[in-house]
Amino acid sequence: MSGINVGVLGSNGKVGQAIVAAVEAADDLTYSAGVDKDDALTTFTDTQTSVVVDFTHPDVVMGNLEFLINNGIHAVVGTTGFSADRLDTVRGWLAANPGVGVLIAPNFAIGAVLSMRFAQQAARFYESVEVIELHHPHKADAPSGTAYRTAELIGQARADAGLAPCPDATSQELDGARGAEVSGVRVHSVRLAGLVAHQEVLLGTQGETLTIRHDSLDRSSFAPGVLLGVRNVAAHPGLTVGLEHFMDL
Amino acid sequence: MSGINVGVLGSNGKVGQAIVAAVEAADDLTYSAGVDKDDALTTFTDTQTSVVVDFTHPDVVMGNLEFLINNGIHAVVGTTGFSADRLDTVRGWLAANPGVGVLIAPNFAIGAVLSMRFAQQAARFYESVEVIELHHPHKADAPSGTAYRTAELIGQARADAGLAPCPDATSQELDGARGAEVSGVRVHSVRLAGLVAHQEVLLGTQGETLTIRHDSLDRSSFAPGVLLGVRNVAAHPGLTVGLEHFMDL
Amino acid sequence: MSGINVGVLGSNGKVGQAIVAAVEAADDLTYSAGVDKDDALTTFTDTQTSVVVDFTHPDVVMGNLEFLINNGIHAVVGTTGFSADRLDTVRGWLAANPGVGVLIAPNFAIGAVLSMRFAQQAARFYESVEVIELHHPHKADAPSGTAYRTAELIGQARADAGLAPCPDATSQELDGARGAEVSGVRVHSVRLAGLVAHQEVLLGTQGETLTIRHDSLDRSSFAPGVLLGVRNVAAHPGLTVGLEHFMDL
Amino acid sequence: MSGINVGVLGSNGKVGQAIVAAVEAADDLTYSAGVDKDDALTTFTDTQTSVVVDFTHPDVVMGNLEFLINNGIHAVVGTTGFSADRLDTVRGWLAANPGVGVLIAPNFAIGAVLSMRFAQQAARFYESVEVIELHHPHKADAPSGTAYRTAELIGQARADAGLAPCPDATSQELDGARGAEVSGVRVHSVRLAGLVAHQEVLLGTQGETLTIRHDSLDRSSFAPGVLLGVRNVAAHPGLTVGLEHFMDL
Repeated sequence: MSGINVGVLGSNGKVGQAIVAAVEAADDLTYSAGVDKDDALTTFTDTQTSVVVDFTHPDVVMGNLEFLINNGIHAVVGTTGFSADRLDTVRGWLAANPGVGVLIAPNFAIGAVLSMRFAQQAARFYESVEVIELHHPHKADAPSGTAYRTAELIGQARADAGLAPCPDATSQELDGARGAEVSGVRVHSVRLAGLVAHQEVLLGTQGETLTIRHDSLDRSSFAPGVLLGVRNVAAHPGLTVGLEHFMDL
Repeated sequence: MSGINVGVLGSNGKVGQAIVAAVEAADDLTYSAGVDKDDALTTFTDTQTSVVVDFTHPDVVMGNLEFLINNGIHAVVGTTGFSADRLDTVRGWLAANPGVGVLIAPNFAIGAVLSMRFAQQAARFYESVEVIELHHPHKADAPSGTAYRTAELIGQARADAGLAPCPDATSQELDGARGAEVSGVRVHSVRLAGLVAHQEVLLGTQGETLTIRHDSLDRSSFAPGVLLGVRNVAAHPGLTVGLEHFMDL
Repeated sequence: MSGINVGVLGSNGKVGQAIVAAVEAADDLTYSAGVDKDDALTTFTDTQTSVVVDFTHPDVVMGNLEFLINNGIHAVVGTTGFSADRLDTVRGWLAANPGVGVLIAPNFAIGAVLSMRFAQQAARFYESVEVIELHHPHKADAPSGTAYRTAELIGQARADAGLAPCPDATSQELDGARGAEVSGVRVHSVRLAGLVAHQEVLLGTQGETLTIRHDSLDRSSFAPGVLLGVRNVAAHPGLTVGLEHFMDL
Repeated sequence: MSGINVGVLGSNGKVGQAIVAAVEAADDLTYSAGVDKDDALTTFTDTQTSVVVDFTHPDVVMGNLEFLINNGIHAVVGTTGFSADRLDTVRGWLAANPGVGVLIAPNFAIGAVLSMRFAQQAARFYESVEVIELHHPHKADAPSGTAYRTAELIGQARADAGLAPCPDATSQELDGARGAEVSGVRVHSVRLAGLVAHQEVLLGTQGETLTIRHDSLDRSSFAPGVLLGVRNVAAHPGLTVGLEHFMDL
């Protein structure tokens, strides 16, 4: 056994199993313990676990984090439902345990994080920008949360740079053709059998365009981002929200 | 001088000049005569012109065609505004001159014609289909005429095959995100500086997608289609509407 | 129970299981029997099976077909290794059983079949054409068999149309940059973690390009093509090689 | 008249005319003077020109720069042929005129600069990366200079991060299929009628890919980058090589 001792909460679930497999496949990590519904959290302290990954449920994640932080164990968290109040509570626990690091991220797909970052950086150099997101037809919301967030970031970058609105001479539109508007950015949602999760940011100016496209082809695409979090969380004590802060972009 | 004698109506206009250049560059065609506003149509008979290309104006095209047909000259026509009545009138003139061929086409870009045809052929094999068209931001209508027509053809092919509606579980939509609906097909219109004229048809079923994409990168893209018409019109006496009928697909 | 009785050879294998699932999910088909290594082929006759799907092994497929044909059962075959001799043998059995249909196809992904067909149809209208295929990095051969076959079909179509070679002014090339040449068509092979199986045919002429792209995102993508074969094989007595013959393109 | 006074060297050439037009179209810039072969450089001092754009020829650019720097005029230079020696000479002139800024850049297309930068930033997060560049068929070199440089930057970023070589199980390759190798990165060059200048960087890891695509659709695509240089060069005294240094990425 060698490398960082990594534990997994919800290790028998679908996501948990994928994380266990990814940890076991990594040379520099050791899978030390899995904890499910009826298991004791002390399993992690008993096994000298250094970092725990939590993709569980909003109902239990706060209890998990309180235990982990108070026992000096770092955490990488993909569970949703973190309000400003919850984040403040986590910060309080961390203040009392200054060496511990916690990463909470809404999206662990590295390509999604990079796409958003690059779109934000490129936005101020282009007159025009639109977002197309494409998903399987079982998705309930349109646009996707990632596309919505991407458009907000782009809109903010354009506003900060003092750009004029994107040029658009449309005077005759069939209802919906030009997409939804989010922070001044048009967003189009495609739903197609055979697709998984995909997004394109299109930026254009005189004579040229730049396209940043992210394709998630299977559900395991969060694994490399989780491992990136596991490897870096100990070096970032306190609370970090968003994987991009570990990516040195 | 060798090959087919080709004349051009509106030869001093932007489109006319491009057609003249394309005819002159083709080994098997000879540019025999150009006629503009103040020139006599008899220039074409004086020069033994065999085929005339007409990209002029709805106000003058009927007069042009009457002269050409009655003088045994074939015509390739990109001028717009042909109602059912006008087409009947042309058919009448042709009935009296049975050896003459006239091609009238709304779109001479070969790729646009092929895209529509392939989309129509593929439609019945796929659960899902959507259309994305992307144009420069000076365009007034959304969706484009070509996208609208493509969606109609796809919708018809799906109906003929008895397909169910495209699956779509969207229950929470920001207004416009899912595009416009044309014959049961979602159509999305992107307007971006730097683009010219582009269209994608996306088809999907279990585990796979097929994408047919057409890019017009400059305004000369109609030229190869016009030459295709010029070379084939004499072999198709009577009226033909749509370039696809000369393409043996 | 209703619809066509469909049996599956190798029903416990990975591919077999996917076919069983697809048959069971189809309203107009009934899964009647599965046969594996140690089971008797008479299971199919005992269950009044009408069509059998065979994705097995070159060592056993000929024995399977002899039994099926002689018992009046239609067959849809994805097993490889059919030489001209083997096809002749199958034709002999079918001659003695004139009502039976057998479909043997190298590729059941509908999008791959359509891509090849459309590329072949479009080829004669374009000065230039190249093929890019993109696969996961575990693939042993480059280019893929499908890309090789696509290039051959395109090359043949260009030759039939009397086209000149694709224009290419390259005078200074880093070894391999311009890809492999198959029947006069350049083919490029990308190998990338995260990909599954993808192919693009790019066609270009003055001012415009046409792109036909096929994406297989998971291994189940052959299922809709197999069902298409199952539904149509009884109406095509004798031997058919290639799914495209059932697609009325 | 208002804003920065901008002069253009080679103002009657094709590129020069495009730059003059772009300067005249910008509200915050004033076109003050154009100088061609037979004109005196003193035209720039006579017109209180603040920044001069030089897209001329290696034979004359050094003389131009010596005059401009010694007269306190900033320069934005797209002319090629700058050896290390030439750059040192320019630095010497600038040392004697400490308030003057000179920008020399091999590529003014903002999208090309951003593509390279993003590829370099993303490289260390992905197991696999390849580059596809696509150009019109009149291009002499394959791969393009931009693709070559992009691959070098990616290769360097991978080496710095200690990444293993891209996985590739190819054991049976038709000569050239897998492209050219530049710094461990496979580069594929497509040459197609109808295209202008395009490049894709494909990055992949478990279950996901990221694609960064740049399309130059006409020759004017360098103009926004030149204006970016013009607006920022006065604030960057001394020599700057590469537009990315003005882009605060």
